[in-house]
Amino acid sequence: MTSEKKIAVIGGGTGIYSVLTGLKKQPVKLSAIVSMADNGGSTGVLREEFGVLPPGDIRRALVALSESEELLCDLFNYRFKEGSLEGHNFGNLFLTALSKMEDDFQRGVEQAMTLLNVQGKVLPVTTEDTQLHAELENGKVINGETNIDVPKHDGNLKIEETFLKPECSINPKAKKNLKEADAIVVGPGDLYTSIVPNLLVEGVPEAIEESSADKFYVCNLMTKFGETNGFTASDFVKVIKNHLQSLDYVLVNDKKPSEERIKEYEKEKAEFVTYEQLKEQDFKIIKEDLIRESGYIRHDPQKTAKVIFNNVNT
Amino acid sequence: MTSEKKIAVIGGGTGIYSVLTGLKKQPVKLSAIVSMADNGGSTGVLREEFGVLPPGDIRRALVALSESEELLCDLFNYRFKEGSLEGHNFGNLFLTALSKMEDDFQRGVEQAMTLLNVQGKVLPVTTEDTQLHAELENGKVINGETNIDVPKHDGNLKIEETFLKPECSINPKAKKNLKEADAIVVGPGDLYTSIVPNLLVEGVPEAIEESSADKFYVCNLMTKFGETNGFTASDFVKVIKNHLQSLDYVLVNDKKPSEERIKEYEKEKAEFVTYEQLKEQDFKIIKEDLIRESGYIRHDPQKTAKVIFNNVNT
Repeated sequence: MTSEKKIAVIGGGTGIYSVLTGLKKQPVKLSAIVSMADNGGSTGVLREEFGVLPPGDIRRALVALSESEELLCDLFNYRFKEGSLEGHNFGNLFLTALSKMEDDFQRGVEQAMTLLNVQGKVLPVTTEDTQLHAELENGKVINGETNIDVPKHDGNLKIEETFLKPECSINPKAKKNLKEADAIVVGPGDLYTSIVPNLLVEGVPEAIEESSADKFYVCNLMTKFGETNGFTASDFVKVIKNHLQSLDYVLVNDKKPSEERIKEYEKEKAEFVTYEQLKEQDFKIIKEDLIRESGYIRHDPQKTAKVIFNNVNT
Repeated sequence: MTSEKKIAVIGGGTGIYSVLTGLKKQPVKLSAIVSMADNGGSTGVLREEFGVLPPGDIRRALVALSESEELLCDLFNYRFKEGSLEGHNFGNLFLTALSKMEDDFQRGVEQAMTLLNVQGKVLPVTTEDTQLHAELENGKVINGETNIDVPKHDGNLKIEETFLKPECSINPKAKKNLKEADAIVVGPGDLYTSIVPNLLVEGVPEAIEESSADKFYVCNLMTKFGETNGFTASDFVKVIKNHLQSLDYVLVNDKKPSEERIKEYEKEKAEFVTYEQLKEQDFKIIKEDLIRESGYIRHDPQKTAKVIFNNVNT
């Protein structure tokens, strides 16, 4: 019996979900290191009212790693419709109650994992309170992740730079997991609002560089208007490499979806990402069919997980 | 390998808690059939606001059967202190969210058990909405379990009779569990507000009578002012036998606690229950040391469970 490979996945939003649900079916030890930059909706209200860290991305990672995935997903997304509880999302209340009870957000997340029998680890990338800011090409600075999303900013204006304010440091447990990992997977996910916010945390790029893990970047399938207009795989990688020197593998999708499926994205001004301009540098490019057979153009969890798993050195 | 004994415990309030936590350490298959008469506090508010069945007693039974007993207990008892959630008990919100989501209270409870990895079964005695009423010796009728508790009624006035209004029928799953059980344990718990309300549900006494299980009644250790003033074990059994003909065993405690511990109960006008007047009839009296070594005079879970377990026919 060989020991299981340790895989640390870094991300946020819905992108990390596919990778986690796929990898949990492989014989690996998983940890999800998630962004703490979310400040929209119910998460934003709880951050203000209770002074807790944002539960949104943590919630999604817990669901992804749960054995009762569908049920927990429904419960965590359930919103009360009656009386004084109206509009509150149950998953956020769950994490808020545990965090307040334990007087510690991370401890609250750990207790949630025990209670919900979740396999693996879910770790906030930082346990310090911070907000994501973006500077646009016209010099305007936007404060707060939810305000960076279109239509709150004019999507035609390019994002020049993002930064966290106040600055914050890596969660020591996330650091430990990155250092001990056999593989580190960055992405997929919204580049500036879900992926880069992790790499902006002090100590995260260093922990990844110092780790002897195989380092994967999973490139997005579609561009996102207001974040990555007209981006090819090469542009995505360039932004990642600005924060993270050492990548071993870049995973790109080489199966073009039907014109019909791509057309569905026109109203969102999102385009299919091509990789022809991406040249191998100090990393290897892995080109595979990574997409779901139908519906939204998203990473297929099983296909993506298998490609990652098969490329991890043992 | 012999098959595990099936034990169904009927009760409500905190009494059932001791029996369940003790029995879960024995090699048995447990089901907890709990009272649906609670209408106080946060439970009462949710019954009104959401139209759900009362989650209070279900919550306690789930905690008792959980493997993360202490943690789940803390979480379920956690009350929000901030903003719009102030005063809400987390456990009740949890069961309310699941019930509303599933559009069915019992299904909600089952989902809670799956998510929380709770062993055994927790079943509402009825899934119909009803309220407990009590008629006092002066003819006054009290509506609602919470109003029967002292000081809402003058504790010197004896309860003559209790009834449910509207009438309601046994939950078919509870019926099945009672019929298939090797042992049925009634009590301990507040006689008129936690135990008898189960026996008032149409079909419950019949299901117990028809079952070939060994039937135990666990007599209370202390009287409760306003419910069982001056009661001895004989009086407790008389009330139970009014609703339930066939009992095989009555468990009474034969270890008198110190005068100091008994004195603590004087301000609540509660007295130590004696059993000398209880005569064997068609049931056997089991006299054992059943109490905790110190603190509140309550059933010791392990002692009580062992006595029950050792007396179940195989």
